[in-house]
Amino acid sequence: MDDTVPNSTLSSSYQLSGSCPMPEVTGPDFSKSELLPAIAQDSETGEVLMMAWMNKEAYEETLRTGRVCYFSRSRQKLWRKGEESGNVQELQAVYFDCDGDTLLVKVKQVGGAACHEGYSSCFFRRVDPATQDFVVEGERVFDPKKVYGK
Amino acid sequence: MDDTVPNSTLSSSYQLSGSCPMPEVTGPDFSKSELLPAIAQDSETGEVLMMAWMNKEAYEETLRTGRVCYFSRSRQKLWRKGEESGNVQELQAVYFDCDGDTLLVKVKQVGGAACHEGYSSCFFRRVDPATQDFVVEGERVFDPKKVYGK
Repeated sequence: MDDTVPNSTLSSSYQLSGSCPMPEVTGPDFSKSELLPAIAQDSETGEVLMMAWMNKEAYEETLRTGRVCYFSRSRQKLWRKGEESGNVQELQAVYFDCDGDTLLVKVKQVGGAACHEGYSSCFFRRVDPATQDFVVEGERVFDPKKVYGK
Repeated sequence: MDDTVPNSTLSSSYQLSGSCPMPEVTGPDFSKSELLPAIAQDSETGEVLMMAWMNKEAYEETLRTGRVCYFSRSRQKLWRKGEESGNVQELQAVYFDCDGDTLLVKVKQVGGAACHEGYSSCFFRRVDPATQDFVVEGERVFDPKKVYGK
C-alpha cells in the first residue's frame, strides 16, 4: 500500500535522528555527490543484479525513457545498459533511500542476464566466511564470446 | 547449486571482456578503494534493506563474527549495525561482484527493520517517473522515538 506522507511528518522524523534538524529528503541528492550508487534488482525474482552509478542526467534519462541508464566511471559517459548486448533493463520502479544518496531500481532484465560474464547477477561469487575463498553460484545464461564477439 | 570454477576459466572469461587481459577477481578488492559499497538484502524476503560501506576491517569482522559490520563514513569508524537499536544483521551469505568492487550481504534483520526511520528497508520512498515526486511504501515497523529515545 502506498500512502503519501505530509512534509511535516518527514521533517519531524528526520529531526529525531540527531540533535540538529536534518534536511528533508525529497529525492536523490546529486548535490552531495555527482554520482550516486544505483542498485538494480530483478522486479520478479528479487535477485540483486548489479550495482552501478548514476549522475543526474542518467537518472533523469532513466525516468524519461523507462530504460535504465547509468554513468560509466571508466568511460566517463552515459552508459545505456544493454546497448551493446541488447540486454537492456526495463524500468519497473525507482526508489531512493532515507539519506537520499542511494538509488534502487527494480527492472525487467531483458535476456535474463545483467552480468557481462553471462550470469543473471554480477554477484555470482559467494564467499566462504571461514576461508575467504569463493564458490560460483548459478549457471551462465549466455556465453560472453557470442554476445560480445570477443 | 554451487560449483567451483577453475582459475583458468575465470581468467579467460575476464580476458573476453576487453582487449587487455583483466586481473582475475578472487575476492573484494580493497586496493581499488578503501571503502566498498555493501548492499544488504533480507535473506528470506529478498527485500533490499540498505546500502552502506565496508573497509577491509569491517568485511573481515563481518565474516568472523557473523554479524554485519560496516564502516561509517560520517563517524569514520566501524559501525556494528544495530549496536544502539539492537536491530543487528545476522549474516547468512556474502557475495562480491564481477569487478570485485561491490559486496552483497544476505542477512536476517533482527527487529524486522533496517532503517533508522523504522521501516524495514531504507528504500521506502518510490519515485513517480512522470513527476519525480515520491510516495512512501510500506509501514513503519518501529517508532524511532522509542528505539533511539530522542
